[in-house]
Amino acid sequence: MRMVDIIIKKKEGLKLSREEIEFFVRGVTDGSIPDYQASSLLMAICLKGMDDEETLNLTLAMVASGDTIDLSEIPKIKVDKHSTGGVGDKTTMILGPMVAALGVPVAKMSGRGLGHTGGTIDKLESIPGVNTQLSQEEFIKIVQDIGLAVAGQTGNLVPADKKLYALRDVTGTVESIPLISASIMSKKLASGSDAIVLDVKVGSGAFMKTTEDAQKLAKAMVEIGSGAKRKTVAVITDMDRPLGKAVGNALEVKEAIEVLSGNGSDDITEVCITLAAKMLELAGMGDFNKCARLAEGTIKDGSALEKFKQMIKAQNGNEEVVDNPELLPSAKYTTEYRAASDGYIFSIISDRLGVASMLLGAGRATKESVIDPGAGITLLKKPGEMVKAGEPIMMLHANSESLFKDSLDELEKAVVISREKPPQTPLIIDIIQ
Amino acid sequence: MRMVDIIIKKKEGLKLSREEIEFFVRGVTDGSIPDYQASSLLMAICLKGMDDEETLNLTLAMVASGDTIDLSEIPKIKVDKHSTGGVGDKTTMILGPMVAALGVPVAKMSGRGLGHTGGTIDKLESIPGVNTQLSQEEFIKIVQDIGLAVAGQTGNLVPADKKLYALRDVTGTVESIPLISASIMSKKLASGSDAIVLDVKVGSGAFMKTTEDAQKLAKAMVEIGSGAKRKTVAVITDMDRPLGKAVGNALEVKEAIEVLSGNGSDDITEVCITLAAKMLELAGMGDFNKCARLAEGTIKDGSALEKFKQMIKAQNGNEEVVDNPELLPSAKYTTEYRAASDGYIFSIISDRLGVASMLLGAGRATKESVIDPGAGITLLKKPGEMVKAGEPIMMLHANSESLFKDSLDELEKAVVISREKPPQTPLIIDIIQ
Repeated sequence: MRMVDIIIKKKEGLKLSREEIEFFVRGVTDGSIPDYQASSLLMAICLKGMDDEETLNLTLAMVASGDTIDLSEIPKIKVDKHSTGGVGDKTTMILGPMVAALGVPVAKMSGRGLGHTGGTIDKLESIPGVNTQLSQEEFIKIVQDIGLAVAGQTGNLVPADKKLYALRDVTGTVESIPLISASIMSKKLASGSDAIVLDVKVGSGAFMKTTEDAQKLAKAMVEIGSGAKRKTVAVITDMDRPLGKAVGNALEVKEAIEVLSGNGSDDITEVCITLAAKMLELAGMGDFNKCARLAEGTIKDGSALEKFKQMIKAQNGNEEVVDNPELLPSAKYTTEYRAASDGYIFSIISDRLGVASMLLGAGRATKESVIDPGAGITLLKKPGEMVKAGEPIMMLHANSESLFKDSLDELEKAVVISREKPPQTPLIIDIIQ
Repeated sequence: MRMVDIIIKKKEGLKLSREEIEFFVRGVTDGSIPDYQASSLLMAICLKGMDDEETLNLTLAMVASGDTIDLSEIPKIKVDKHSTGGVGDKTTMILGPMVAALGVPVAKMSGRGLGHTGGTIDKLESIPGVNTQLSQEEFIKIVQDIGLAVAGQTGNLVPADKKLYALRDVTGTVESIPLISASIMSKKLASGSDAIVLDVKVGSGAFMKTTEDAQKLAKAMVEIGSGAKRKTVAVITDMDRPLGKAVGNALEVKEAIEVLSGNGSDDITEVCITLAAKMLELAGMGDFNKCARLAEGTIKDGSALEKFKQMIKAQNGNEEVVDNPELLPSAKYTTEYRAASDGYIFSIISDRLGVASMLLGAGRATKESVIDPGAGITLLKKPGEMVKAGEPIMMLHANSESLFKDSLDELEKAVVISREKPPQTPLIIDIIQ
């Protein structure tokens, strides 16, 4: 088999065989296929596509490129959740405890932030003492004991994805439904859960800019899941607005505690109940409506908050932060971003908000940047609310006052104030299963 | 400017600006753009295309990547000719003398064989003493003196093409009209002639398999020529049959001498007169019919043969080969390929014939192979002729008898004998100008 023949086949729009796809993924992983051939095929895939069978074969070949996690020691149906990434997305810290509080085990591998904002691991590490670098044994033991653990990736999971993603990033081949869905699903399949709930974000701040594209991606991933015999559901949610009120690591932990205490804002609470209900449904806890009531109940009866506390303790953190959020790191300085004119907040552009937060130290400008756990932004007003000129819209938190100027400049471009009230659009746009 | 943005732009089917194309070609030439980005863009160009303006800008940027030849010291209109390559194509050795005999200067840079068979330079070097490695000064001096020189490339012409071609070859991005036409035309423009006649071959043995594709390529190249202010004409010729009777270096020199003496076979004579007439027309010698008569006249009056002799002498060769072709190198052994059955020779597949000749030593299996100037194949019968089983169809020439077997095996696959007479198709298919 010659790589150049595989490239020409896809260039001509033909279907690649399982053997050809495996040859490609193996060669990328072991370095026997040079990057210039891999990137040429990636571009051909971007422009000529892959059908469901090819995409499944690509995903399975990527899973086979490295280690896989065996969760069979944990009894019952294990449900995983993945979000395609959003600014201020703290859902894992809320969903995990809700679902685990109902006896459904959650063994969640999470990442650090790739974009402007921290990832779930960065957020959890802002809790004093929390250890997210668990061995596979420790990880499984904690899930067996309390039903919930959130850890950074252990082992050499899907090395093919690491190589392909790095290459796609610099060769203009990121945007491709088969490539994106294979990248996400290969990591989910390698992580060993029995069922997967996908949160596909759509909007200006998200990977998928239109509902149509988000639906295509969701369908492709659900198809892979079913091809790999994992129950998979995708919930398409709106990312044209920031979720909740906090952006920044400790600030988001604090907001997660508020939501788990029943004091969160409506949008984030609604999204978390929907995703949790879908996870519970896949775990066999009843139909969606029943599961939604169960999920809501874990907030009302305090069991979800208690589960979060248990998890922090099991992962060596100071669980007192749950009752005393002031124990979380906080920034020395704050300043306000104020409305430039009277009117409705028409929109807050999520990715600009993410950049503004990153500029305060809450995210990584480069891979090597160190995150400031206390930095970030809290929204005092949400899109749709009316403001007067000069009225504070956001609070900025940083450990150096010199960081405020650039961040405020970015926020100027993030906030749109209008005389018109923005249309109310649904937060949950579609469910694909 | 970032390469990844240029890739994404082309991926989305948008038109690249002159600045973007120049950035790409400069970066490929100086190595600042890595191969994996170049190949990704090349695939996007293959699949999304380039319009005439982009293709012209690509060609001009490639010309600017290296040296260019200045032929302005040679008076009159200099006409160049290029063939897209064919098995047994000895037209340069025939055309050059015909055109130069009429006072139109021909300063021809030629290449070595890239495919199975030798290039014009390899063929000329089979003449004892001939020097094709001329300095630019020597090259121009010979053209000034006798009106004709054929030399290997001097200087660092179009280094961008060398890099891009090597990359395209291994990344499945060879077949693309804009990339092929920019590659060919950049070398023609850098070689300094005022007018260009292109011989675009079409058929199973050629780069372009269909007349439609050949016409597209011809149009793209003529468009580049006119954009670069060079009179350009493309003649589309049939390559479904071998041109003339000889394949192999000294064997083709011998056949060229026969054609120049008026004893060549009809097909090669017709193609040479057509191409020469087009060259003469571009040089302002009159209309096509008049130029065709003039070209034919150079064979009848012996002036073309005399010009070939002058050129061999000027390039240090033994010009006596023209009158005594037995002075050319010849192979020690010969054997015949015989018809397997009665019938018409329906076709002789050109590229298989080329491989069979290469296996005798007449071409290069790898870049490093040394060509045997005396080796090759002569056709005793041409397609359309009737044969009896066992009757000789070809004569094989080699310096080792052990080479015959593989070559004969390849010829089994090259020759198709049928009860039906093959349809007579025109040799000159179209002229694009």
